[in-house]
Amino acid sequence: MNDTLSLTEALIRLPSGTPDDAGCQALMIARLEAIGFRVERMRHGQVDNFWACRGAGSPVVCLAGHTDVVPAGPLAGWDSPPFEPTVRDGFLYGRGAADMKTSLAAFVCAIEQFVARHPDHPGTIALLITSDEEGDAVDGTVRVVDALAARGEIIDYCIVGEPTSVDRLGDTIKNGRRGSLSGTLTVKGQQGHIAYPHLAKNPIHLLAPALAELTEQVWDRGNAHFPPTSWQVSNLNAGTGAGNVIPGTAELRFNFRFSTEQTADSLKAAVHAILDRHSLDYDLVWTLSGNPFLTEPGKLTAAIGAAIRSVCNTDTELSTTGGTSDGRFIKRIARELVEFGPINATIHKLNERIALQDINLLTQVYFNTLENLLI
Amino acid sequence: MNDTLSLTEALIRLPSGTPDDAGCQALMIARLEAIGFRVERMRHGQVDNFWACRGAGSPVVCLAGHTDVVPAGPLAGWDSPPFEPTVRDGFLYGRGAADMKTSLAAFVCAIEQFVARHPDHPGTIALLITSDEEGDAVDGTVRVVDALAARGEIIDYCIVGEPTSVDRLGDTIKNGRRGSLSGTLTVKGQQGHIAYPHLAKNPIHLLAPALAELTEQVWDRGNAHFPPTSWQVSNLNAGTGAGNVIPGTAELRFNFRFSTEQTADSLKAAVHAILDRHSLDYDLVWTLSGNPFLTEPGKLTAAIGAAIRSVCNTDTELSTTGGTSDGRFIKRIARELVEFGPINATIHKLNERIALQDINLLTQVYFNTLENLLI
Repeated sequence: MNDTLSLTEALIRLPSGTPDDAGCQALMIARLEAIGFRVERMRHGQVDNFWACRGAGSPVVCLAGHTDVVPAGPLAGWDSPPFEPTVRDGFLYGRGAADMKTSLAAFVCAIEQFVARHPDHPGTIALLITSDEEGDAVDGTVRVVDALAARGEIIDYCIVGEPTSVDRLGDTIKNGRRGSLSGTLTVKGQQGHIAYPHLAKNPIHLLAPALAELTEQVWDRGNAHFPPTSWQVSNLNAGTGAGNVIPGTAELRFNFRFSTEQTADSLKAAVHAILDRHSLDYDLVWTLSGNPFLTEPGKLTAAIGAAIRSVCNTDTELSTTGGTSDGRFIKRIARELVEFGPINATIHKLNERIALQDINLLTQVYFNTLENLLI
Repeated sequence: MNDTLSLTEALIRLPSGTPDDAGCQALMIARLEAIGFRVERMRHGQVDNFWACRGAGSPVVCLAGHTDVVPAGPLAGWDSPPFEPTVRDGFLYGRGAADMKTSLAAFVCAIEQFVARHPDHPGTIALLITSDEEGDAVDGTVRVVDALAARGEIIDYCIVGEPTSVDRLGDTIKNGRRGSLSGTLTVKGQQGHIAYPHLAKNPIHLLAPALAELTEQVWDRGNAHFPPTSWQVSNLNAGTGAGNVIPGTAELRFNFRFSTEQTADSLKAAVHAILDRHSLDYDLVWTLSGNPFLTEPGKLTAAIGAAIRSVCNTDTELSTTGGTSDGRFIKRIARELVEFGPINATIHKLNERIALQDINLLTQVYFNTLENLLI
């Protein structure tokens, strides 16, 4: 299975800064077509995507991921060049080593091994691969899912290869994600001289009691699968820079991470109610990044959990915390969906890396999971 | 008395951008020495100041002001060049026309007229002139007052020629000013990812309830001479610019304008008490621009009020509102101090101007006030 290391290295060598696939998908497709996959390329704008299937009928088991990577950051901060995969001290270093080119290579190698052993497997093995997960995510997975949904395709079990492990490989599976809803609030006042406050309306003062109420609000208490909904301000800016001027507006940017106890609409209504109760004159622009989704413990979590226990000798925790992923799009057509992949400690950082031993273990987990679901 | 117009024009022609006197004081000093004034030049750093006296003993009547002006702003916005005094449509245009070169010229011409009529006047006529009122105000009037205080000099009546009139010449005298106390507050949190708020401490959230309390606080209700103390935020900034990062700190800049019901120390203590009650981790840097001062209605307000009534046919309001002036420094050695001068509608603006008729009226008010106080 050193094959996974070789393929990972080949993928890292292709500098696929989001949304440029840089040839990664062609490498994967050549390997998949050689073992009988039917591959559908779906390029949208700058973004390469493909959907590949082998076999027929249900269950449909899909492995999903992305070939694009985040920027390398300052080259001087890397001990070896980010796009020259380098083995050192038991680790493979390179941009994408953890997020998520090793997962892609492990997908391919696990499938090759599975097909070699079960050439006439029941059901369907599918891959859904994009090059636009780290970027805008508008021409990537969401477009492929649109096309699949339009023709009525359903995925029974989907594994997204995102790096979900925390301290050791296998310790965490994501069986859902919170929703993410952002807002940009502009509170309008009236600019003026600080010595004449009665001739001005200070938007910071107008905002203050509403802001205090928003920060103290308990949105929900979460539930068995989700932590409580959180509201956080990322940016708050008001003022001309001068010390003697009352500013005319204040701008607040905030983000909800929300549980299945809420919807985007319930949260919007709650925020507007607070702002309106304080009689603010404001503009508020909303951006919904994703609704919350959940896979209840069932056949998929059991299959991957058993694979992890036998390969990694580790108990696995189900979690719905953390950021968003393309799982939010795929869940629309997937009965059960989890995310599982490498340790995420170095993702998006300098000297991104994966332990050499985890490369083969990950391939083996995906292989065992395919067997647990299909055989 | 067209003499005042000529001298004002001569002063405007000298481009005395703060703190550069540009020769204004030499013009004034030549005129004053010609009628028997003893002039003491007090240059500190870049700043020209002088103290001039005529006569002896009490009462000491002082006329005070500044030769420096604020920047002209964009030249394209002026209908005539700011340092070329221009008479147009009944107005004199130029930087300093209202703030406060007309007042300086009116001081000199009123004194010349007074001395011509009362060559052996009782008491002392004094002038205290600086070139650092619009700037840092550290090497100007405050230094002259230090020197005068060190040798025990006392001013009985001081008139600062700042532009205090609002709608028509004479409608407003300032008989005091509020104090001004500023603070820069840095609230410390802990930066982190917005999806993991439990691993961060959001300084905006920590600040919010304290900010709401500060904006709602009634500091005092003012008194017969002062409006209530006001607290205003000028600038509030927090955030990295990214929408997914909880910032590490929040910075708030604020200003008190405070009545004689408070002291700088009482306000500082009240703010610290609120911040501490909310258990904030913070730095707070204070800047005291000036303590409040007050001249109760008395001989000086009566003398200038009578002069205004007879010259301008206007009733006069006593006021303590508005920004700071050098009066805050002089009050330390002045028994009674008021500010009185031109209409302030165009000060610090493009096309600064004064009505031609007000130039002579202002000279006459200062002349009559000198007679009311000394004769």
